[in-house]
Amino acid sequence: MELPKKANIVEVCPRDGFQSIKEWISTELKKEIIDRLIDTGFKKIEITSFVHPKAIPQMKDAKEIVSHCIEKHSNKDVILNALVPNLFGAKAAYESGIREITYVISTSESHNKANVKRSREESFNELKEIKKSFKDLKIKFAVATAFGCPFEKDVPVSEVEWMIQNGLEANVDEICLADTIGVANPLQIDRVFKELSKSFKDQSFSLHLHDTRGMGLANVVAALQNGVDTFESAAGGLGGCPFAPGAAGNIASEDLINMLTNMGIETGIELDPLLDTVELIKEKIKPVLTSHLAYVDRDKICVL
Amino acid sequence: MELPKKANIVEVCPRDGFQSIKEWISTELKKEIIDRLIDTGFKKIEITSFVHPKAIPQMKDAKEIVSHCIEKHSNKDVILNALVPNLFGAKAAYESGIREITYVISTSESHNKANVKRSREESFNELKEIKKSFKDLKIKFAVATAFGCPFEKDVPVSEVEWMIQNGLEANVDEICLADTIGVANPLQIDRVFKELSKSFKDQSFSLHLHDTRGMGLANVVAALQNGVDTFESAAGGLGGCPFAPGAAGNIASEDLINMLTNMGIETGIELDPLLDTVELIKEKIKPVLTSHLAYVDRDKICVL
Repeated sequence: MELPKKANIVEVCPRDGFQSIKEWISTELKKEIIDRLIDTGFKKIEITSFVHPKAIPQMKDAKEIVSHCIEKHSNKDVILNALVPNLFGAKAAYESGIREITYVISTSESHNKANVKRSREESFNELKEIKKSFKDLKIKFAVATAFGCPFEKDVPVSEVEWMIQNGLEANVDEICLADTIGVANPLQIDRVFKELSKSFKDQSFSLHLHDTRGMGLANVVAALQNGVDTFESAAGGLGGCPFAPGAAGNIASEDLINMLTNMGIETGIELDPLLDTVELIKEKIKPVLTSHLAYVDRDKICVL
Repeated sequence: MELPKKANIVEVCPRDGFQSIKEWISTELKKEIIDRLIDTGFKKIEITSFVHPKAIPQMKDAKEIVSHCIEKHSNKDVILNALVPNLFGAKAAYESGIREITYVISTSESHNKANVKRSREESFNELKEIKKSFKDLKIKFAVATAFGCPFEKDVPVSEVEWMIQNGLEANVDEICLADTIGVANPLQIDRVFKELSKSFKDQSFSLHLHDTRGMGLANVVAALQNGVDTFESAAGGLGGCPFAPGAAGNIASEDLINMLTNMGIETGIELDPLLDTVELIKEKIKPVLTSHLAYVDRDKICVL
């Protein structure tokens, strides 16, 4: 089994995780969790999203979160990323001090409309506007529902290729394929990345996985075997798209890091302080965690 | 990705699952769950174990369970298997009408002592006695703690090879490697099976996995890539060794079958009645299910 020696883990709990929690999480608690996650060693973290507060009230403190993070962490080797669904959000993010955004467009037209209230074409037009308006803003382009859609079900690889082609033409800085509703299976992951390596030689992709059906880590391994080395995950396995019925938590950062570490793949992230943070999330937010490690006795975790 | 076209799934919920539940499950409910699981299409099922009732009180109705199953299902294409830890248990199982047992010996001496109160040598001696005493009794030899031990931690492949060699010399009918405490990682699975394919050419192995750390289905895929096509799993993801600290549920049959089906691998098992049975388990036994599919909206499961 040929695998990369190192992997980059992008922590998305403060964005994808918190957005799935209906009860208000205090800004102070959000800050504490983000601070701890950054101190754990993540080199990129999605700290919030600039969306309409009516759509996702949990994210209404986005500006304050960004101010705090810039003040506290801008001297560190960490990218502070915020998700934006449109030009309006990108402008707000940029003005708050954000210099890397996640810009999301769904591969399936129906999910894009449900998620960001636009056609894919409108979304791509705004992406070009963003690129033109904010020269020093890096863009991670998230290709949502790349492996399946809650409305259209099967998503052909040709549609994913069309999305990537459009993203490349818009000069995005990173392309992240997202299994928004956790339906991808390892064979599919293998086939899609093999296809893409033919259509887009030398183009790297990051991968955003949900563990809805328990295939999350299996999909990571299938992707690693295809040379993918950048994965998004959430502390505690929190997460879920509010506009995708049937979506559940992201793959849990602690489960992912435990597996990679045991496989000899370096992540640069310390498991122990991460597990402390997961305990804090468990205690204060009381979410349904899809994490496995969160339920293993602490002294039994690194048994090997 | 080269994978087998078909896989055999052995259902172990009525043994490994029920033994992990402290509250008494009525014999009638056990029978109902077993009947439903058999009707779902499993071709082999561990229905109970013949252990000392003081060690695992939940299994004290073993004889009655076997009688029921023989009466109701012996005309069907299904193997009714019972676990036994020693000669005494094998005799009781045989007398009850069982014709295939799971005989378990741990790769690590310390876990074998904790689990079956014997040294490995004593266990192998009893295995030979069983083989001699009951000529028409098939033996599935379960190599426990093959990928890690709660007491000795790391388990060298050479010890697994020693176990297999001893099992083959005792003329067992099947060899099942068990990750008793769910610590195996996919790279380790790959390496162990590659080693074994050198040491034991043409010998097939089945695999018994727990999902304690979320790597269960990833390990299945790594094993499939090495030609392994027989897996043990439990409806609902119930399970756990009462004598292995830190052990948690087996991989869930429904998660496994959903993944294999989506990967085009035939199992012969219908997901829908299986999910009905998982709902019954959830409702009547109220266990902590490690299943993923058990928490997905029913109409969203087979989205692809």
